[in-house]
Amino acid sequence: MEDSKVTVILEAARKRFAHYGLTKTTMNEIAADIGMSKASLYYYFPDKENLFVAVIGQDFDEFVKTIDALISKRNKASFKLKKYIHMRNQLLNKLFTLAKIERSTVSEVLKPVFGEHRQKLLAKEKELIGKILELGIKEGEFIKFNVSNYADLFISALVGIRAQSVGVAFIYNSELEEKINHQATLLVDIFLKSIQKA
Amino acid sequence: MEDSKVTVILEAARKRFAHYGLTKTTMNEIAADIGMSKASLYYYFPDKENLFVAVIGQDFDEFVKTIDALISKRNKASFKLKKYIHMRNQLLNKLFTLAKIERSTVSEVLKPVFGEHRQKLLAKEKELIGKILELGIKEGEFIKFNVSNYADLFISALVGIRAQSVGVAFIYNSELEEKINHQATLLVDIFLKSIQKA
Repeated sequence: MEDSKVTVILEAARKRFAHYGLTKTTMNEIAADIGMSKASLYYYFPDKENLFVAVIGQDFDEFVKTIDALISKRNKASFKLKKYIHMRNQLLNKLFTLAKIERSTVSEVLKPVFGEHRQKLLAKEKELIGKILELGIKEGEFIKFNVSNYADLFISALVGIRAQSVGVAFIYNSELEEKINHQATLLVDIFLKSIQKA
Repeated sequence: MEDSKVTVILEAARKRFAHYGLTKTTMNEIAADIGMSKASLYYYFPDKENLFVAVIGQDFDEFVKTIDALISKRNKASFKLKKYIHMRNQLLNKLFTLAKIERSTVSEVLKPVFGEHRQKLLAKEKELIGKILELGIKEGEFIKFNVSNYADLFISALVGIRAQSVGVAFIYNSELEEKINHQATLLVDIFLKSIQKA
């Protein structure tokens, strides 16, 4: 019962965000969309920002499931790592598009919203990337190396690519996404070259 | 005449920053230290933040000179790249220590101060790293690759390493610096492995 109400709220919120973006959506509108009182909506979510984080959370959970499925397949670890980066970029692209945030305010507007959540998501990402790297070592595709250090560095580099690109750009658009994809692909190639057996 | 006044101001400001940090230093104190009127000091620098950026600018100019000298030496490009990272970390360590900024407010306090300057400094860094990479290709130490893309990615990764480490940490200290040094060293190793001739 509670769960289904939350689902209905998240669905309505997602639609609003997708059409109008984070800043132009109000809690009142979301409540009206689903015929819920403002008080009831605020009972479930204290503010728009937390609602947005919950919507993002759904997408991230979906991403984790997809990656878990990917990891359990019989493909090479190098393929999995490339696929991971591709799907990560898709996910983040979707989230930024959902927020419809323009200009370099991206990080400023999203930072307080994400806050504590961000580090948890990155820790989960480190775990997933670590699993892929360990598989590659176990199956003899990669040389032995410190998986934790490599995964840490890999995540940091991915964070840097996005931060640098978004920070310089004025508008978050497909051109920027392409630049990020390109750099992330180069990063994977460089990493793989350094760990793949000759 | 003008120049020497600026030098005196910068020297006094640097001492104040080094002792008390950015937030605890006031323009009044700096003016008093050098027996200058507040009005005169404000004539040269509109506020404390701009003064801080000017002090940082001195250190960065010094860094660029040292790197230029390094580039012109006869060492291997791989040595130069490692040295570059080492000196870059030293420089940034010094700047953060100068600001005496604690907790994860580092980026929030320093961001508005740096602002436009930051991208200029990173562009200069890209140029320096690009020079080293090109030397390595020219002298047959490295395979051929797109220097601009590699330099871009390298800078982004360095930015990410620092942002990730500082963002997670509560206090900017020598332990954190060591972690950053360690990750940056691993990054250089991975990069070099992917471009050095077998």
